[in-house]
Amino acid sequence: MSVYKRLEALKISLPEVEPPAAAFVPVVHTGNLLFVSGHIARKDGKPWTGKLGENLFTPQGKEAARGIAIELLATLHAALGDLNKITRIVKLLVLVNSAPSFTEQHLVGNGASDLLIEVLGEKGAHARSAFGVAQLPLGACVEIELVAEVQ
Amino acid sequence: MSVYKRLEALKISLPEVEPPAAAFVPVVHTGNLLFVSGHIARKDGKPWTGKLGENLFTPQGKEAARGIAIELLATLHAALGDLNKITRIVKLLVLVNSAPSFTEQHLVGNGASDLLIEVLGEKGAHARSAFGVAQLPLGACVEIELVAEVQ
Amino acid sequence: MSVYKRLEALKISLPEVEPPAAAFVPVVHTGNLLFVSGHIARKDGKPWTGKLGENLFTPQGKEAARGIAIELLATLHAALGDLNKITRIVKLLVLVNSAPSFTEQHLVGNGASDLLIEVLGEKGAHARSAFGVAQLPLGACVEIELVAEVQ
Repeated sequence: MSVYKRLEALKISLPEVEPPAAAFVPVVHTGNLLFVSGHIARKDGKPWTGKLGENLFTPQGKEAARGIAIELLATLHAALGDLNKITRIVKLLVLVNSAPSFTEQHLVGNGASDLLIEVLGEKGAHARSAFGVAQLPLGACVEIELVAEVQ
Repeated sequence: MSVYKRLEALKISLPEVEPPAAAFVPVVHTGNLLFVSGHIARKDGKPWTGKLGENLFTPQGKEAARGIAIELLATLHAALGDLNKITRIVKLLVLVNSAPSFTEQHLVGNGASDLLIEVLGEKGAHARSAFGVAQLPLGACVEIELVAEVQ
Repeated sequence: MSVYKRLEALKISLPEVEPPAAAFVPVVHTGNLLFVSGHIARKDGKPWTGKLGENLFTPQGKEAARGIAIELLATLHAALGDLNKITRIVKLLVLVNSAPSFTEQHLVGNGASDLLIEVLGEKGAHARSAFGVAQLPLGACVEIELVAEVQ
């Protein structure tokens, strides 16, 4: 099944791609790899702010991470023209804005990982690191960067 | 000398590979690169928890990082079948669970870097970033991700 | 215009390359990619220490990030012999030593991003992630790692 059929089956529509908030580009293509800039969580078109373990908890963090994965797919769609060109999601770096006591960054990250596997199947299974950061740009609760392989 | 002879000389036996604690895979192979997921520190088979500069200090951090390097080699062995296929350790990302005052992340990272050079010789010399994070999955004291090159 | 003419026009002279403070190498070349180790901010030849949002603020952070970008170019020059061999800056990882309330890591990162674009033109436009860390080696205020493409 094509990636777009899967997105439709999951009732996911890709959002408009936001330009980066600073002096960099959303994606760089080198060889067979696409390096995608860190995307921050958004809610109703604005940064989704908060700190996990303080004013947000794991379920919201997962939802935020899932939303970022959809934005990352939108960015890849804009860069490639066709998400079916992706042969593999290589790696995610999952940055969770964390209170010093919050230890469920891996569960937050699953919100993104599960979505990528739902949409891309085996091609969506990736390496990953998740960790708690002191703070994120614009106060966002989660930021994720991605490396993908295309043929 | 083969990598396995060096491991034997160092009296290091590779542990069983633990499945990831979440929805991702331990390694993705793309082109000549292997991207290995962040591995957290373990002690007696359980996450080695703690915060550097608070309840753990540099010597324990180094020991934790050395242990992770051995786990990363075990994961590479499981993925490749033969560690002699590694032509270079490309890069480490060393995440140290740090109190706001702890500034020896680079010394903690040396626990992993030294081990990789002991085991792999010149092929083990890598680029690296080390920094202090607010918290890690399951409360681990150190997490390390790795990129390796194979021919 | 060659990269060196641009550096001259910007009145930037590349510093001597400092050896890494620990057991790793400054650059690893694999395929067409160069992975450059995290470089910390320096001032008058010593680590530029401090925490953004606590005892340093965005303008100093930007200046620190710009200085690191120059050091990264010096490291690339030492590794390649000729900066004109760079075909693209692929990605930056910008680590900002941040108080829990500081949310302008992206503006700090612009200090490095703007410099790379000034010096390298379109080849300098890169993917990027910026985030706040709990602490950095030697108490540095900013650390940046870089991936570059060469032909």
